[in-house]
Amino acid sequence: MSALRRFILKCRECGREYEPRLVYVCEECFGPLEVHYPELGRLNLSRSVIESRRKDLWRYLELLPIEDPRNIVSLGAGYTTLHKAERLGRKLGLRNLYLKEDITNPTHSFKDRPASVAVSRCLELGLKAVGCASTGNLAAATAAHAAKAGLPSFVFIPEGLEKEKIAQALSYGATIVEVKGTYDQANWLAARFAEEYEVGVVNVNIRPYYVEGSKTLAYEVCEQLGWKAPDHVIIPMASGALLNAINKGFNEFRELGLIDNGTRVSGAQPQGCSPIATAYQRGDEYVTPVERPETIAKSLAIGDPGDGNYALRTIRRTGGAAAAVSDPEIIEAVKDVASLEGIFVEPGAAVPVAALKRFVEDGIIDKDETVVCYLTGSGLKAPETLIEKVRPPIVIRPSVEELRKIMEVMGVA
Amino acid sequence: MSALRRFILKCRECGREYEPRLVYVCEECFGPLEVHYPELGRLNLSRSVIESRRKDLWRYLELLPIEDPRNIVSLGAGYTTLHKAERLGRKLGLRNLYLKEDITNPTHSFKDRPASVAVSRCLELGLKAVGCASTGNLAAATAAHAAKAGLPSFVFIPEGLEKEKIAQALSYGATIVEVKGTYDQANWLAARFAEEYEVGVVNVNIRPYYVEGSKTLAYEVCEQLGWKAPDHVIIPMASGALLNAINKGFNEFRELGLIDNGTRVSGAQPQGCSPIATAYQRGDEYVTPVERPETIAKSLAIGDPGDGNYALRTIRRTGGAAAAVSDPEIIEAVKDVASLEGIFVEPGAAVPVAALKRFVEDGIIDKDETVVCYLTGSGLKAPETLIEKVRPPIVIRPSVEELRKIMEVMGVA
Repeated sequence: MSALRRFILKCRECGREYEPRLVYVCEECFGPLEVHYPELGRLNLSRSVIESRRKDLWRYLELLPIEDPRNIVSLGAGYTTLHKAERLGRKLGLRNLYLKEDITNPTHSFKDRPASVAVSRCLELGLKAVGCASTGNLAAATAAHAAKAGLPSFVFIPEGLEKEKIAQALSYGATIVEVKGTYDQANWLAARFAEEYEVGVVNVNIRPYYVEGSKTLAYEVCEQLGWKAPDHVIIPMASGALLNAINKGFNEFRELGLIDNGTRVSGAQPQGCSPIATAYQRGDEYVTPVERPETIAKSLAIGDPGDGNYALRTIRRTGGAAAAVSDPEIIEAVKDVASLEGIFVEPGAAVPVAALKRFVEDGIIDKDETVVCYLTGSGLKAPETLIEKVRPPIVIRPSVEELRKIMEVMGVA
Repeated sequence: MSALRRFILKCRECGREYEPRLVYVCEECFGPLEVHYPELGRLNLSRSVIESRRKDLWRYLELLPIEDPRNIVSLGAGYTTLHKAERLGRKLGLRNLYLKEDITNPTHSFKDRPASVAVSRCLELGLKAVGCASTGNLAAATAAHAAKAGLPSFVFIPEGLEKEKIAQALSYGATIVEVKGTYDQANWLAARFAEEYEVGVVNVNIRPYYVEGSKTLAYEVCEQLGWKAPDHVIIPMASGALLNAINKGFNEFRELGLIDNGTRVSGAQPQGCSPIATAYQRGDEYVTPVERPETIAKSLAIGDPGDGNYALRTIRRTGGAAAAVSDPEIIEAVKDVASLEGIFVEPGAAVPVAALKRFVEDGIIDKDETVVCYLTGSGLKAPETLIEKVRPPIVIRPSVEELRKIMEVMGVA
């Protein structure tokens, strides 16, 4: 099997194939390109081979778009804990609820997965620098992996972003380019950057490779469940790319014969920015963009989701569902996941848990099904969202009598 | 081998032995008690048995002070990446430099290790609640594990702490008791809490069990280096307990025959609070407390280190060294670790890297030695320390011409 033929690019719309170079849009029909593994069925990749490898996302090397393993840029992302959620499960009436705790990646969000693959591919393609447009998790993940690779990185942000949000990316030595304008304008300039220079903008001209990193979230869950796919997964949706990538992961594992059961794939969005969930509920075939996203789940505030129509199709084809949840429901979910399971997530990552409650109430999910919610980012990314919503400190003097008074109230004997 | 005799408590000063109950100070001589495994030599714990187990700190179950595995409270802490630091190593002239990236634990600091063991032991001892005095990492780790166990948790903090610092602990549902007074007074009240109620205060009456969690940082590094101890380790020192625990881990692995080489154990402190390093440099046998700690490495600001004298002895016995580094050196180290290796740590966690530079300059460490620096907490815990110290964003209009001007300056062609 020649290394070059292991993977190709293929247009999602017209199926035209391309050599895997620096191309991301079909020249024929302008459809998006995605990575395809033509020899997948002939790959000799067994469960025991995978099990013998190091516990990070690169254990699935043959299923990732890198030709030479020496180009791998890894900070150890992947193979995060699949957490059996006993207490949250009891509250919701579910016997087999799992949380994929993807907050323990190196920069504390799932974005380390696509960033690791994208920066590796940039190195492999001989590019001189990497970049992205981002206001948060992607900036940190891209900058960290670029630092490890020794490549300069450029992060395009809209004006007026709080300094705390970019401290992490700055720490890794990224050059922050603050664009006087909106996020869309920052995004536009990042795309020009990709066109004008020999650089890889991870979510623009490296996008086909980049999204492959996210599908390892499907592989790992199957492996962690004893080589069995979950009955149902719930995924936060921004552009919709994560949901499609995870579904692609399940499909590839089935094609390889590593699992044999199917998975219903559901998506969750915040009400203040729910173009995909709204289209699902209306029965529309295409997503209508949201003009002004307004939600505490900042990491999901993409009004015009690039992969929205594909996500919609995936949800329907797999028999999944989509829900839009309110800010109070999201905060409640953050508190539930933290106080019942000990996992502190950012609002965007709690959206699937809030949606899960709805799905259970609506009878979409049965109590015996194996359900996985993907928790995609740490609560430390946005601690301010919670401060006003939790019980404030109890203030006392340093005295044993005052301590006793509190403990009496708290029921500690 | 009876479960109860697997481990006992033993006074570090007079050697008196105790059944492993809720006792932490020797009744004879008031010395601190520590966990001792009398049958260690007869334990049939092989490399392959350990290798076959799940990748978290509980893979070393026989070496941890829990009688019944059903009491284990785990969020998946442990078995974090041992990161080969090629670029930082080159800068410092070291060929075998490793960073133990302990920021990817569930609450993003090494404190998840002792907290996991302590809360498990609290459950095992039938205690009704857990607590700690802390201004940061320990509060989050304790509250998270208590949440997972379904035990109420109480965190004692001094007055005037910024809300951001306690948001994480609050999220897990901890009751925050703000004590009108200093950190010492909060600590004092936490100790009273341990005395007055049937509760476990992790770093007071559960302390002997608690510190055992930290020694897994030694075990893992040996395993990750192919069952070989590093030549030299550098550890941040606050109370000194972490350094002693890691040294205990190396000793136990040697006693078990799992490794056979020795390790020099060095400690690092910030200049604004360096009682142990100062005593080392002066040749003193005992540590003199620091009245007013003042450093950006807040997590190391313990003026009167409980385990300081023991840490001093460990450093000297193993042929290690101790250094006190300045705030500018610490910030430089944060930037180096982030920009060369893609790992963003809090100032306290960068202190060993700053000390490492000194050790190399002073000829204490040779270029071929295998060196491990312990990175104990994520930079997201204290992003504000870095914001004013890194290169600010470059501000431009959304225009290709302005983009070109920047890229020319940056040398991107």
